[in-house]
Amino acid sequence: MVIVPEGMIPGLLTRQASFEAVEKVFAAMASGEAANFPVVREAMPTEDALYGFKGGVAPGILGLKAGGYWPHNLERRGLINHQSTVFLFDPDTGRVKALVGGNYLTALRTAAASSVSIRHLARADAKVLGMVGAGHQATFQMRAALEQRAFEKVIGWNLHPEMLPNLQKVADEAGLPFEAVELPGLRDADVIITITSSFAPTLMADHVSPGTHLACMGTDTKGKQEVEAALLARATVFTDEAAQSVSIGEAQHAVAEGLIAEGDVTPVGAVINGTHPGRTSAEEITLFDGTGVGLQDLAVAASIVETAVADGTATLVPL
Amino acid sequence: MVIVPEGMIPGLLTRQASFEAVEKVFAAMASGEAANFPVVREAMPTEDALYGFKGGVAPGILGLKAGGYWPHNLERRGLINHQSTVFLFDPDTGRVKALVGGNYLTALRTAAASSVSIRHLARADAKVLGMVGAGHQATFQMRAALEQRAFEKVIGWNLHPEMLPNLQKVADEAGLPFEAVELPGLRDADVIITITSSFAPTLMADHVSPGTHLACMGTDTKGKQEVEAALLARATVFTDEAAQSVSIGEAQHAVAEGLIAEGDVTPVGAVINGTHPGRTSAEEITLFDGTGVGLQDLAVAASIVETAVADGTATLVPL
Repeated sequence: MVIVPEGMIPGLLTRQASFEAVEKVFAAMASGEAANFPVVREAMPTEDALYGFKGGVAPGILGLKAGGYWPHNLERRGLINHQSTVFLFDPDTGRVKALVGGNYLTALRTAAASSVSIRHLARADAKVLGMVGAGHQATFQMRAALEQRAFEKVIGWNLHPEMLPNLQKVADEAGLPFEAVELPGLRDADVIITITSSFAPTLMADHVSPGTHLACMGTDTKGKQEVEAALLARATVFTDEAAQSVSIGEAQHAVAEGLIAEGDVTPVGAVINGTHPGRTSAEEITLFDGTGVGLQDLAVAASIVETAVADGTATLVPL
Repeated sequence: MVIVPEGMIPGLLTRQASFEAVEKVFAAMASGEAANFPVVREAMPTEDALYGFKGGVAPGILGLKAGGYWPHNLERRGLINHQSTVFLFDPDTGRVKALVGGNYLTALRTAAASSVSIRHLARADAKVLGMVGAGHQATFQMRAALEQRAFEKVIGWNLHPEMLPNLQKVADEAGLPFEAVELPGLRDADVIITITSSFAPTLMADHVSPGTHLACMGTDTKGKQEVEAALLARATVFTDEAAQSVSIGEAQHAVAEGLIAEGDVTPVGAVINGTHPGRTSAEEITLFDGTGVGLQDLAVAASIVETAVADGTATLVPL
């Protein structure tokens, strides 16, 4: 089998490869060629940890990401708190094929999802990128987003403004001006990414101008919410996986309030496949509810394995 | 991390070690110190395969068995049809700790379960072991069972009598006489193991004498059934995990017919822990419904890792 340790992955995995893997697997999910399995997520008896499995199957890909959140890792042991590992199997035989460190990969596959949505749903002439959230993951989202349109400016808001220099730094790298704004200031954005762990809406419907594309990336649990439910009623809503969007994603609230139905939520893969037209006017608000699915991890891990085997950097262990 | 490939496991794993690991984890499950996670089991789009995950957590143990059944492996590729792999994690940090081949291990942990039930529930003076089923797994069950009492004879029945020499061979190894019987002949047995893939009852209540201990090991899916439901009403029923016993185990039918309730099914771990008296008379029929839980696999895999590290045969891969 092939082993690609966590430490090697930043040197092997590009944003481009993550994008291609995620775009392809979203398309396969929408056409019914790929499916995610029910998610297992359990509270651990020690360390206040959460642990679980996200599995799936797609053409040539089978496996799971296992891991979770150990909130005391950093303070107690100097390890990062999110710990995960991807295991790939041969879909033809059931034999284990590869083990891939899942931490850096998770950051890039999540950024790739919003980036895919921007490629397929944002206006071609988008100029201003708005960021809601300025944590570690926000920087990955922002770098990936900036590659999708000829952005001229980034504006951003964060609950704790002292974290905004994280966004400033990425804007500097890209040679773009960055401006901290209040939430109503996001009306100037053509694309908005929300990437917070909020349990109450932050971005309200009247903070968003016609023609905007939103990628809401922070809500992956019952109870979390980043944007006002009324915004989903005004928008055309897309997602990675509709069943997850309406149960644990951003759409859960709009559906619970009866503002939209599950049938109003379209897999972005249908736009990639051309079976849904996507954006149909310059005034339409499009909203991508990125809930995160196991197949994103598996597809990116499969791409890493391919690269690591091709360039001879993978560890090969006889089984 | 530690890797113990499939091919090394028969040389590392003893029946004794499997027994101790399974007995200990059954006890921990009954005392609430250990828990199995919801099982994921999915039909694959190709190869008519079934694939899934069985995870759990116990003191010092965290992880899952992933794998399943690829029915064309043998004919198409010369590989065995059941393919599984165990992954262990550090419960303190969430980091992956070990990968252990899961095929041989599964046979031994399943045999250990019935063996644990015989140790704790069969009459001390049991002399005749009865086998219903004579496939590959039956030989593992039989070897483990013979170590628990001073058996003097083995009797056996199989739907296809041409497989009975499998049982004869194990009896010969143990220096015991073996006799093929019709089902009513099992009234002579003091301990009966059923290990078939039957979807209709084979062993009827009147094929079983007072004082017998039964270990029903074949039923792990809705619809499967090895023994007449009325037998469970006559017996004191034990299991590995009650919730699984009444939903996918042998007890599903007796519960569906209203003959017993979930509360009548006791985890064998309670007997191991001494919180349930177990058998209370020489006439009582005891029945162990072995449904198979992920923690059996994880506990045995953890024991294998310990042995392989101690004797220097494990493959160590830096992560």
